[in-house]
Amino acid sequence: MPIYNAPTRDTKFVVNEVLDLPSYGNRPGFESATPDLIDTVIDECGKFCAEVIAPLNQVGDSEGCTRHPDGSVTTPTGFKEAFNQYVEAGWSTLAAPADFGGQDMPHVLGFVLEEYVSSANQSFGMYPGLTNGAVNALLAFGSDKLKETYVSNMIANKWLGTMNLTEPHCGTDLGLIRTKAEPQADGSYSITGTKIFISAGEHDLTENIIHLVLAKTPGAPESSKGISLFVVPKILVNDDGSLGERNAVQCGSIEHKMGIHGNSTCVMNYDGAKGWLVGEEMRGLAAMFVMMNAARLGVGIQGLSQAEIAYQNAVAYARDRRQGRALTGPAEPDQKADSIIVHPDVRRMLMDAKAFTEGMRALYLYASLQVDLTHKAETEEERTLADDLLGLLTPVIKGYGTDKGYAVATDMQQVFGGHGYIVEWGMEQYVRDARIAMIYEGTNGIQAMDLCGRKLAHKGGAAIQAFFAQVDEEVAGAEGELKPLADALAKAVGEQKAATMWFMQNAMANPNNLGAGAHHYMTIMGVVTLGWMWLKMAKVAAARLAEGTSEKAFYEAKLTTARYFFERFGPDCGALRRKIEAGAEAMMALDEDMFLTAA
Amino acid sequence: MPIYNAPTRDTKFVVNEVLDLPSYGNRPGFESATPDLIDTVIDECGKFCAEVIAPLNQVGDSEGCTRHPDGSVTTPTGFKEAFNQYVEAGWSTLAAPADFGGQDMPHVLGFVLEEYVSSANQSFGMYPGLTNGAVNALLAFGSDKLKETYVSNMIANKWLGTMNLTEPHCGTDLGLIRTKAEPQADGSYSITGTKIFISAGEHDLTENIIHLVLAKTPGAPESSKGISLFVVPKILVNDDGSLGERNAVQCGSIEHKMGIHGNSTCVMNYDGAKGWLVGEEMRGLAAMFVMMNAARLGVGIQGLSQAEIAYQNAVAYARDRRQGRALTGPAEPDQKADSIIVHPDVRRMLMDAKAFTEGMRALYLYASLQVDLTHKAETEEERTLADDLLGLLTPVIKGYGTDKGYAVATDMQQVFGGHGYIVEWGMEQYVRDARIAMIYEGTNGIQAMDLCGRKLAHKGGAAIQAFFAQVDEEVAGAEGELKPLADALAKAVGEQKAATMWFMQNAMANPNNLGAGAHHYMTIMGVVTLGWMWLKMAKVAAARLAEGTSEKAFYEAKLTTARYFFERFGPDCGALRRKIEAGAEAMMALDEDMFLTAA
Repeated sequence: MPIYNAPTRDTKFVVNEVLDLPSYGNRPGFESATPDLIDTVIDECGKFCAEVIAPLNQVGDSEGCTRHPDGSVTTPTGFKEAFNQYVEAGWSTLAAPADFGGQDMPHVLGFVLEEYVSSANQSFGMYPGLTNGAVNALLAFGSDKLKETYVSNMIANKWLGTMNLTEPHCGTDLGLIRTKAEPQADGSYSITGTKIFISAGEHDLTENIIHLVLAKTPGAPESSKGISLFVVPKILVNDDGSLGERNAVQCGSIEHKMGIHGNSTCVMNYDGAKGWLVGEEMRGLAAMFVMMNAARLGVGIQGLSQAEIAYQNAVAYARDRRQGRALTGPAEPDQKADSIIVHPDVRRMLMDAKAFTEGMRALYLYASLQVDLTHKAETEEERTLADDLLGLLTPVIKGYGTDKGYAVATDMQQVFGGHGYIVEWGMEQYVRDARIAMIYEGTNGIQAMDLCGRKLAHKGGAAIQAFFAQVDEEVAGAEGELKPLADALAKAVGEQKAATMWFMQNAMANPNNLGAGAHHYMTIMGVVTLGWMWLKMAKVAAARLAEGTSEKAFYEAKLTTARYFFERFGPDCGALRRKIEAGAEAMMALDEDMFLTAA
Repeated sequence: MPIYNAPTRDTKFVVNEVLDLPSYGNRPGFESATPDLIDTVIDECGKFCAEVIAPLNQVGDSEGCTRHPDGSVTTPTGFKEAFNQYVEAGWSTLAAPADFGGQDMPHVLGFVLEEYVSSANQSFGMYPGLTNGAVNALLAFGSDKLKETYVSNMIANKWLGTMNLTEPHCGTDLGLIRTKAEPQADGSYSITGTKIFISAGEHDLTENIIHLVLAKTPGAPESSKGISLFVVPKILVNDDGSLGERNAVQCGSIEHKMGIHGNSTCVMNYDGAKGWLVGEEMRGLAAMFVMMNAARLGVGIQGLSQAEIAYQNAVAYARDRRQGRALTGPAEPDQKADSIIVHPDVRRMLMDAKAFTEGMRALYLYASLQVDLTHKAETEEERTLADDLLGLLTPVIKGYGTDKGYAVATDMQQVFGGHGYIVEWGMEQYVRDARIAMIYEGTNGIQAMDLCGRKLAHKGGAAIQAFFAQVDEEVAGAEGELKPLADALAKAVGEQKAATMWFMQNAMANPNNLGAGAHHYMTIMGVVTLGWMWLKMAKVAAARLAEGTSEKAFYEAKLTTARYFFERFGPDCGALRRKIEAGAEAMMALDEDMFLTAA
């Protein structure tokens, strides 16, 4: 049976020591962030996820969800009971606003919850996880009436929410959607159309499900400027808040997927369902991005979460499994063979995983703090910086985080040798589950274009310059044993700057030069941002060691892993920069027919 | 329904134009390699695989194999009929020796068959595929009696063969095996033990199954020097060649795997089964390597095969699916959106796949020719070179070929966006099937150590120097428009030479320095060997274009893809060399306990 232990010590290291969240406790809006409360939330959350949610991960995969002839859906054995416990324990309201029944804790802690839940059971985590985005859209654009009707119950996870964007013929290009919204005399709209790939579209966890649905009003143009967002409850809500009639929306089928079997991915049929406009007509795209941005961070965390649980199990296996002898001579001569953790290639994969998971944890927590600061900054300058950094980091966390998360999950499966390929051992599930995160909420190619096509150009490049200034400042502040790490980070960010410059000089002449290098650029920035976090972490570790600590081994391991990170991740930046500078010519030169197989 | 078209034009390009196989037709042993026959075999083989085998790929995945209470196993619907056609058409005997009923065609063509069968249906291909290795071991080490009893029927695929190495507690470290072989009065041995992960261990395709089993004779030492190889038929063969009693070997269960569901991966229980020694007692390792080496090339080809079929389907989807507009402006303004093949990031993935699949096809065919030359060289010098090159190329083809094959299959799934994750579209199966090839027949970490720990040191480095001489010669012979490609190859092989030198200078002091860099080195050599093949192919293409050809677009595409290859694969070599030079220190520094999750 696979293990999962929430990495609470590491989370606290980042939250308390690197980000120093407790120091924000004096600021308006951060009052709840007392040191004691922070640690308690992290510990309890870790305990709950490990004890209640993790044991359901394999059964969720093997059973999957069942759609019944009446369109209802049953979740895997144990999901409903665990979900009830999750709600009763109040996890759903952790970082939600107090006005709607939330606990108003920092988003930093809300994202810690997302990591732990998702490591424990990604499919389970998606049920409450997608509700956050839907709530954000309602809070940002919904009328008071809509907020009053839905938000508190959604925050309490009495009702869960969904995001309905994709249709059979369009996912990325939402301007093509065909779902219709006809205005009705009572101010509502009649929604008709088919949506696919709807995560948690139908299930038995809650009495109601609140769908946020993109559709087109009559006469709307055939582009993303013509789309509007609607709230469409599964069961209509009476004026007094009680549940009324069943709405005309049904789960038509559940998709057969590579992974995340425990989550019901539905085809949803809207057949004149009653819906209400969120915000203004034809302004659906802005509302969708509000949903999306929170979801994208969450998906990036899924990349980490699968890497993390795969890593933990690979470590256990590598310590237990005995094959061969250390290259330097038997490590345990009294045994018939050494444990495979002595082999450099096994170490390489484990250290890669360690350097990635700890670095990515720091990065998403740093980004989560920027989410808090976009709401609760003390100055306009601070808010602007937080907003700019968050805009840049979101596609990197989603794109790089899930690319690398999948690669790490694959490596951890490799540590198991043949047993990694066998279902019962659990490793192949992590790979299959991790795979979706590279695709949904915008494929990683879309993330790369969001980063390079939109975010780099944002404010004439002021945002990326602000990012570079942050990294440069981090580099400048490093001395002594930290200097080699800072030099390596300077080299990596130097490659990113050179690539940025190359885009500036070559994308105008041919925008394909930008598109051809976008994915490489996202990867460089992934390495640079992780390196930035590793330098921050190394600084804290060095300071702790200098002042004396009872956790010497913990902080020394941070310094060693930082060194490993720059040795093994750093060199890729130069190679990727050279690939970017190759431009689009050879990539785009072939006639389309030349991709066909010639006989 | 997924498509598959055998890439016959590309195969013929390599076989006829790059390797010039027809020119070998004058040599002893190559008489059958007439131009007409070569083309006919390639065409007919492609046709058979596409028409008969490929349509069974998805049903094989969804149905899997069924073990019945009596231990018998049924293969998926259609497999038996297709297999009978395969045997009747004579495909199994293609490259087998005439002495045992084979057609004695070049191994080059035998490996073409392996590629096509495996692209069409990897699980299906594994049934006959593993028999080759077993036959090789019998031919190399079996007594005349054993050869006479088994080989002809195995070559005819009247009986299929298996390789029984792994046990529950050991795979890589075969010195640990516990299966016992007790000598009997009649010269046979009584075999008792449990073997796992036995591909095609039990099935309904043939009337008999011939297991090659590693076991230990009484008193044999507890190391790989103590293992012996035995042939253990499922049904005993009478002296007159007819089938006799059932032997005491049974399929205990079928493994539940991530992929290759159509192949029965069995736990095999030997309970005093009758077996016969192959070769000498305690010389099983050498016989096992004979089985293994053929199998490793075949597994490397599986990496290519899954990349190839995934690529073909991704191309079809990218031409058909319409989302968004080209960055340079609408490509088809009369349509609502452009096909996604206009997007650089989609092109990047397709060009990566094209550069890999065509390069790897050339590489395995080149290696296959070396297999032929190890048997049929005209001079001892030629034979030695072929043997040295084959030794070096085998772990690269297996290790790099399957690492990259999996990565390409994953990218091709990515081209499909959300549909790539849905079972019905077929893409996720290629990823799941491709995954095993990185693990079996020696994990890719083992391949890397075989390359760096054994093959580099072979003959005091003479083999790798011979390889470098080949590449240098190829570089020196390039002029004009080929010069930039040759320069890029020179740069890549320069990185490999530097890495080789670094190993020489640092592996003695600490062998972990070798282990820490072995996987990186294997990847560099993968890029160098593919680059070498791309330069060979570019030379032929340039010559054809210079002399005038009716297939201008085909040859021009070769030159463009060669350029793309060096632009996008080449830069990794320098980064990998720098990673190697980082050495083992940080990688091996952590105490094992520091990998555990701290609370």
